Amino acid sequence: MIKVAIMGCGTIGSGVYEVIENNQAVLQKELGEEIRVAKILDLRSFPGTPYEKLVVNDISLIVDDPEISIVVETMGGTKPAYQFVKSCLLAGKHVTTSNKALVAAHGTELLQIAREKNVNFFFEAAVGGGIPVIRNIGTGYAGQVIEEITGILNGTTNFILTKMDREGASFEDVLAEAQRLGYAEKDPSADVEGWDTCRKIAILSSLAMDGEVDFEEIETEGITKIDTADFAYARKMGTSIRLVGSMLREEDGFSVFVGPMMVGMDDPLYSVSGVFNGIVIRGNQLGVTMMYGSGAGKLPTASAVIADIVEIAKNPARNVPFGWHAGKLSPKPAGARLHRFLVRFDGADAAAAQKTAEALGAKAPVFPDGGAEFAVLTEALTKDELKEKLAAFPNVKKYIRAALNGIA
Amino acid sequence: MIKVAIMGCGTIGSGVYEVIENNQAVLQKELGEEIRVAKILDLRSFPGTPYEKLVVNDISLIVDDPEISIVVETMGGTKPAYQFVKSCLLAGKHVTTSNKALVAAHGTELLQIAREKNVNFFFEAAVGGGIPVIRNIGTGYAGQVIEEITGILNGTTNFILTKMDREGASFEDVLAEAQRLGYAEKDPSADVEGWDTCRKIAILSSLAMDGEVDFEEIETEGITKIDTADFAYARKMGTSIRLVGSMLREEDGFSVFVGPMMVGMDDPLYSVSGVFNGIVIRGNQLGVTMMYGSGAGKLPTASAVIADIVEIAKNPARNVPFGWHAGKLSPKPAGARLHRFLVRFDGADAAAAQKTAEALGAKAPVFPDGGAEFAVLTEALTKDELKEKLAAFPNVKKYIRAALNGIA
Repeated sequence: MIKVAIMGCGTIGSGVYEVIENNQAVLQKELGEEIRVAKILDLRSFPGTPYEKLVVNDISLIVDDPEISIVVETMGGTKPAYQFVKSCLLAGKHVTTSNKALVAAHGTELLQIAREKNVNFFFEAAVGGGIPVIRNIGTGYAGQVIEEITGILNGTTNFILTKMDREGASFEDVLAEAQRLGYAEKDPSADVEGWDTCRKIAILSSLAMDGEVDFEEIETEGITKIDTADFAYARKMGTSIRLVGSMLREEDGFSVFVGPMMVGMDDPLYSVSGVFNGIVIRGNQLGVTMMYGSGAGKLPTASAVIADIVEIAKNPARNVPFGWHAGKLSPKPAGARLHRFLVRFDGADAAAAQKTAEALGAKAPVFPDGGAEFAVLTEALTKDELKEKLAAFPNVKKYIRAALNGIA
Repeated sequence: MIKVAIMGCGTIGSGVYEVIENNQAVLQKELGEEIRVAKILDLRSFPGTPYEKLVVNDISLIVDDPEISIVVETMGGTKPAYQFVKSCLLAGKHVTTSNKALVAAHGTELLQIAREKNVNFFFEAAVGGGIPVIRNIGTGYAGQVIEEITGILNGTTNFILTKMDREGASFEDVLAEAQRLGYAEKDPSADVEGWDTCRKIAILSSLAMDGEVDFEEIETEGITKIDTADFAYARKMGTSIRLVGSMLREEDGFSVFVGPMMVGMDDPLYSVSGVFNGIVIRGNQLGVTMMYGSGAGKLPTASAVIADIVEIAKNPARNVPFGWHAGKLSPKPAGARLHRFLVRFDGADAAAAQKTAEALGAKAPVFPDGGAEFAVLTEALTKDELKEKLAAFPNVKKYIRAALNGIA
């Protein structure tokens, strides 16, 4: 029998217990033996639950238990998750985690320890919830130069933006509804400011570039400034607005940003709506692919942990190549990356608007149904070039990135 | 140095050569050694190409060459591909193929031989072109009960249907254009009759059910009868029509069909347009995921072969769990599966149409912009139930499956 310990019995942790019980038959068939949760570390007790008697309060009862070979970390945060995971790895136990904060902050070191101890440190559930994106980068894209990863990586903000788009509702109203529905936290900053997306694209960039990409070096902008007028323009242009994290391999390095982006109807990300996630990966020979699925949620995320557990159980005595290697990689400034931009200006004079459009390589200005303003969709240029050009326009209101391809 | 042989130097075969050359640096980094194509089996010669001198005409020069450890089969068809692949496996060589006909017809036996000889028989490129769907089912969905796979698996027919939808063009006109563009064969039967999709969903079903699903037992219908009026109704209902292959796990077995299906705007398959493929996989704990990408094409398909080669090269001395096991599994009749249906009727009488709609659990009949007919979108029922109900209506023109979820 394979014995698993779970550290942190919140939503994901209890989900892992459930999936192991629910899918025991298929797991036994795949692994050729029984697999059970033997201990659950939590400071709370869970009276009345089927795992009531598995709960322990002391990490050493897991670290020092020779029968436990696989540890699942679903506590979240870095303290004490980092110390606990490190102790487990040093004790020769395999670890799988759903904790993006831990992976983004300490992944490089923990991967290295796992290699040295000949165990595995997996984190399929840390990005994209149930979408098997991390394993895929390592296997499905083997032999491929990954040139770009652009993903809708946060379900909460995607739910908000989709609602704003479809219902013409304001950010504040939809956020309040998302909070009522339990899709958004009481303090929604980590989601709406883009910090969650930032950690996830840092992890994906580290995988694609095979080195440590520090999430603190990634230019990050959230969705709090997106308003109903932005969506009205987007709709008039046959597009929508999504919060993306995006990494682009460049001539001598790579760049990364997190921010809102206009995407056209033929963009595979356009149809990723509600709480779903979608991740576009472009390989140099393979072209564009996308993976779509539940980016969060108890059972989908727990299922990604289970996929890790199965791979560990099939490779109990070896470190399977996974993750990235040591060595810090700094992204190039995102301001030098080519985009198109939606730029909004004050003013209702048609001739002036047309001139503005021409100066920015746009076909024609777009006017709203009401209000003394207009917008243009620029030709491809860098943010730095855009800023330089916009210096000549005192009536600039704001600008939003737009996808380079797929918008008419 | 790892030496590879390619059997069949057509589009995919020459693509494999190209990707190995183009991505030699990344391959060497991943494998820790050089990897080169050593021989290419083809009856033609290729003067002026960089691989001119690699061409051999005799299979025994590959089978008997102890230096060649990996053989790529990209000949297509089953004769002589089956005999050649079998000989290579029996000689202890790993094989990867892009040949869905071979895998659908002989996969079970070839997988078994590979296990006995402790080598690998991989076929990532046989379904979904560059989309790493096959490997994903085995790893990303590990520990999961796969309840449904529904995919747009043929780029040619998807190109045709997308064009028909967007331009209101007829099947015949778009087919002729697709042939001009090289997206459709001169004899397009394998695509437009659904046979290609049939073999692919047979392979995916075999993987999901872990047994041999005979493609000849799958109810298969193509797109030749889809007309502009069908699309006009679909658009009025906020949907589109796609050719899908679909497997559903049922109480005591599974069912499979290939045929046109209406999908709503929130269906992840709705946005899979043009020559792209998209494959929805639903796990019992994971929920819905979709993989999207180039379903065909030289370099995408060759890239999938390369991913196989990398996994082989990393596991040179063992049979990696892959594919399905022996044992024939017969699908249940697809007529017992629940769907909704778009049903078209002759007649323009509003009251009669309303009565028809009610009899089929539809909200209201939909009338075209011209012509003495109407259509209804039924409630959920099986095809067998539908046929029984339609027996009372002598004015039935035709019906098309519609997705159970996602249509208002």
